[in-house]
Order: sequence, then C-alpha cells, then structure tokens
Amino acid sequence: MKKVAVSVGDLNGIGIEIALRSHDEISKLVKPLYIIDREMLQQAAGLLDISVPEDFETLSPNSQIFEILPSSITASSGRYSFDSFTAAVELARNGAVDAILTLPIHKKAWEKAGVTYKGHTDALRDIFREEAIMMLGCEELYVALYTEHIPLRDVAPALTAEKFTRFLRDFHNSTNPTGKVGVLGLNPHAGDGGVLGNEEEMIAGAIDTVNSELGTEIFEGPLVPDIAFTPHTRVHYRYLIALYHDQGLAPLKALYFDESINVSLNLPILRVSVDHGTAFDIAYKGMEPKNLSYLNAVRYIVYH
Amino acid sequence: MKKVAVSVGDLNGIGIEIALRSHDEISKLVKPLYIIDREMLQQAAGLLDISVPEDFETLSPNSQIFEILPSSITASSGRYSFDSFTAAVELARNGAVDAILTLPIHKKAWEKAGVTYKGHTDALRDIFREEAIMMLGCEELYVALYTEHIPLRDVAPALTAEKFTRFLRDFHNSTNPTGKVGVLGLNPHAGDGGVLGNEEEMIAGAIDTVNSELGTEIFEGPLVPDIAFTPHTRVHYRYLIALYHDQGLAPLKALYFDESINVSLNLPILRVSVDHGTAFDIAYKGMEPKNLSYLNAVRYIVYH
Repeated sequence: MKKVAVSVGDLNGIGIEIALRSHDEISKLVKPLYIIDREMLQQAAGLLDISVPEDFETLSPNSQIFEILPSSITASSGRYSFDSFTAAVELARNGAVDAILTLPIHKKAWEKAGVTYKGHTDALRDIFREEAIMMLGCEELYVALYTEHIPLRDVAPALTAEKFTRFLRDFHNSTNPTGKVGVLGLNPHAGDGGVLGNEEEMIAGAIDTVNSELGTEIFEGPLVPDIAFTPHTRVHYRYLIALYHDQGLAPLKALYFDESINVSLNLPILRVSVDHGTAFDIAYKGMEPKNLSYLNAVRYIVYH
Repeated sequence: MKKVAVSVGDLNGIGIEIALRSHDEISKLVKPLYIIDREMLQQAAGLLDISVPEDFETLSPNSQIFEILPSSITASSGRYSFDSFTAAVELARNGAVDAILTLPIHKKAWEKAGVTYKGHTDALRDIFREEAIMMLGCEELYVALYTEHIPLRDVAPALTAEKFTRFLRDFHNSTNPTGKVGVLGLNPHAGDGGVLGNEEEMIAGAIDTVNSELGTEIFEGPLVPDIAFTPHTRVHYRYLIALYHDQGLAPLKALYFDESINVSLNLPILRVSVDHGTAFDIAYKGMEPKNLSYLNAVRYIVYH
C-alpha cells in the first residue's frame, strides 16, 4: 500500500473536515500520514465535533500552534498551511512517502504570512526548479494546461515553437499515455485555415516534431477548441492539452466539477490535490463538504 | 401561428433532409415557407428517397438551378444557399414572415460562389448595418458573444468600455431578460484582483453604468469564467455573456451540443438557426441526421 503525506491546507477552511471524515475510506487504499500537530488536530476536531480516528497518523510540520478562526484569512493559518505543505514535499523528496496529497490553502492567507507563491504548483516549480505541468480532471477526462495563471492578453505571445515542443515532450514523459492525446488550437475554429489566426501552424509543427521523435502519432491536433469537449469528440481522448486556463477549465468544470482533481506533472515527486478551495462559506458549519475530489485524488495516487 | 421563412442552406449537405423529415412536426408550431424551387426540392427528395409532404409550401429564391452533388463544395450550391438566405431576409424585412430560420451553409462554397461574407451573421450585419449579436444555446442556457470570429490575440484589444457598454445595452434591448444576466470576466479567476489582468475593472464599470441606466441590477459580474458554467453557478443564469468565442462556446457545447441553436439579436428581424454545419460526412446517406437543434430553433421563434 502506498504511503501518502497529506498536507492539511488552511485549517480555517474545509480541508481538515474532509480529511477526518474520509480517513476510514482512504485508509483502505493508501497509508496516509497527516502533516499536522496533535494539538491542532484536536482543536479542529473539537470545533467540528468529530472524533479523531484511532489510526489517524500525524507528523508535526514544525510550525507555530495557533487558534483556528473558521472562515477567516489569517497569517498564522497561512503560515501553518505552507509549513504543512513543505514538510510533505520533503517527505516525498526523501522517499519517505510515495506521493503528497494537498488540501486547499488560501492564497491571501499565504500572502499575509509573507509566502510569495501564488499556490502549490508555483511553489513546487521553485522548490524543484522544474517546469511543473498543471493537469486537472478525472478518469473521464484530464486537461493539461500549457499556460495557467497569466492574463488572457499574454497567452498568444507565450506560445513559441520551442517551449511548446518541450511541453509536449515533458507531458509525454510524465504521463506515458497509451491512447491518443488531443491538442487544442489557440484560435476559434483552430484558426480556420489561417483566417482566424495562424498559431495553429506552429502547434501542428510541434505535434509533428514530437510524434516523429516518439515514432508514433500519439498527439493529435490542433483540435477545434469548442468541439474538443463535445460528447462525440471527447470520448476519443483521455487527455487534452489546452493552451490557456479557461480554454481547458471552463468546459472541464462545466462537465466534471465535483469529481475533478489537480495533478502536478513533470516533477521528481507525485503531487495530487483536490480541485476546490477552502470553501469558507461552509467551513465548520456541520455541512459535510463533498469529498469526491479528495477520494479521486487518492485513487489517482493508487493507479499512477 | 407565426410565419417562418426557411432558407434551405447548402443543398449538398444535410439541411434539406432535416427540413423534409421535420416538416410535419414543425407545422404544428409555425407556418413554414421554404425558400427553394420545386425542381430543386424534387431533386433533393429523390436523392434522399423521401416524399415531399403535400403542404410543403415553397417560394423560388430566383437562383440558378443546379445538380446536387452530395457532400461536395460547389460554387453553384454556395450561390443557391446564399440566394435562398437573402430571399428569406427580404421576406422578413417586408413583414411577409415573422422570422427566418436558416439551415447550414458551407462557408467555402460561399467563397467559391464569390460571396464574401464569413457566414449568416456577418451578412446580416452588412445588410442591416446593425451590430448583430450572436447568441447560442438552448432553454437551459444561452451564451451571447461580445467578440466572435477573431484571433485570440485580438480579443483583449477589442475590449473597450464604450463598445462593451453599448453591447450590454443592445443585448438588454433585444432580449428583455427577466432574470439576472451573468457577464464573464476576461482573465483567469476574473483577474484575481488585478494580478492576472485588469480588464475586469472596465467590465465592472460597464456593468455598473448599464445597471444604473436601467435602474436594476440585471447584469452581474465579472464572473470567474471557469466557474460560471459549473452546475451550482449556471443554474442562476438563463443568459451568460462571454467575451470571446471559445470562452462561451467550449463549455456550452460540452454541455448542450445537440440541443443548441444560434440566434441573431439586435437586428430589425428575428433570425434563428441550427447550431451545426452541413455535416457532409452523413449527407444523403440515409443516416437521418438529428433534428433537435432545428426543432429548438423553431420553438425559439414560437416563444420570442
């Protein structure tokens, strides 16, 4: 059974409730180690009125103990969530665990705590000095993003043959896909023969280059972006590569909102995450947050 | 019962089969007038091995009779489809019909015929000298597009306060929405407070301006684009306004591919269309193309 370090995310949010409520279920699939102090765990469990499972194994992140303030953005909670995350990363880097599973942090809390990263993926890129690839989705469909958190006006200029070719290579190396991988075009109708933009020529070139290197036509495209996600087309692809954030995530979340997870590819460690936030609106309110994304994240670790 | 002029689209494609097969059903809802010569109709019906319904009322488009070549791109078919379309437009302009319903044309066939428009909407803009608004969708969700067939790199520069404010006004005038209308942001996370782009300030300003003019908070936004289409959010909106083609249409078609229609708003006439193409792959092959989009287009005319 694989060992998984679980970083507990922002303790003012819903993460710890999901971890506590799902422990019995995920323990059938993996051996979780939660990066949290017993004191903080008892505090959260008390507020939630949930008893801590007996086999709930923990490790201290060596962070400052603090008072949980449900649904609040605080520096202390931001710092703790960052320390829990980096401790999990170190366990994976040293081979003490097989993967890390991250619960949601609050970006503004990180900011308040003086953590300058925009999120987990950004931090991982810096820690490992590797071009981490962000992929979201579920077993029905995964979508990897060529660009992520940049303004829309910067997307087209960020697309170069060299970078995109490397991206396709990296993606292939980190997923070893067995079926075809669909690569989206940048423009409406995939440029419509150049009338609506010409970046598709470069995309087609990169696909050809990497397919030739691999000796197999594994990458297909450029696909017409608004057709790629339709029922008859998406059924052909387990993986789609989107060129920008909303091109991939708007249709993905329209289809698979509750079940999707977030995977960081192209890193020396495997990191998987839920694809939702701290959900302050329902935290510590006895509303039993959905845990489908969390369970799917665990299943991803089991099968990869 | 409303009178509807039906332009028959590219006769080498699936349009006429849909019209023939759906005639009995739509005749319960509207009074259709098909813009086609009897000779062309008999030719198509013969190839399809479908008998022409007795009450299938037609009007000649005054175009050149030609030989139907199933699934081929020909100038003669392109010209005929354009003439059928403009004849339908004239009937609506003169008040002889209440609306026009357009079957799919083939853009390359228009090109071959020397028709310079990119499609129906583009032609309507020129004919009426009005800023037609393209809206796609179905009763569950309609999506109106601020920009349409332009390269992605031109989207952000095309967004100005003046134009966008006018767009919101025009949209409101042509739909008279009763519920809230969601307006998407341009950037990932709707700019995330300016970190991922700042066009959302202008969008918010335009929303405020038009809401103030109307004296009601009918427009809401800027919404986070990849959240707007999720189940819990989209249920609040019958109409969403997308800033560019794939932002709106990729999620819409992921969710509602077969049922969606295309409506031209902000024109002196009502024009509704199926939201699919000529489908040369299945034309004249006895495969009975789906007609849900066609039926929904007719229903739209009935209820608007």
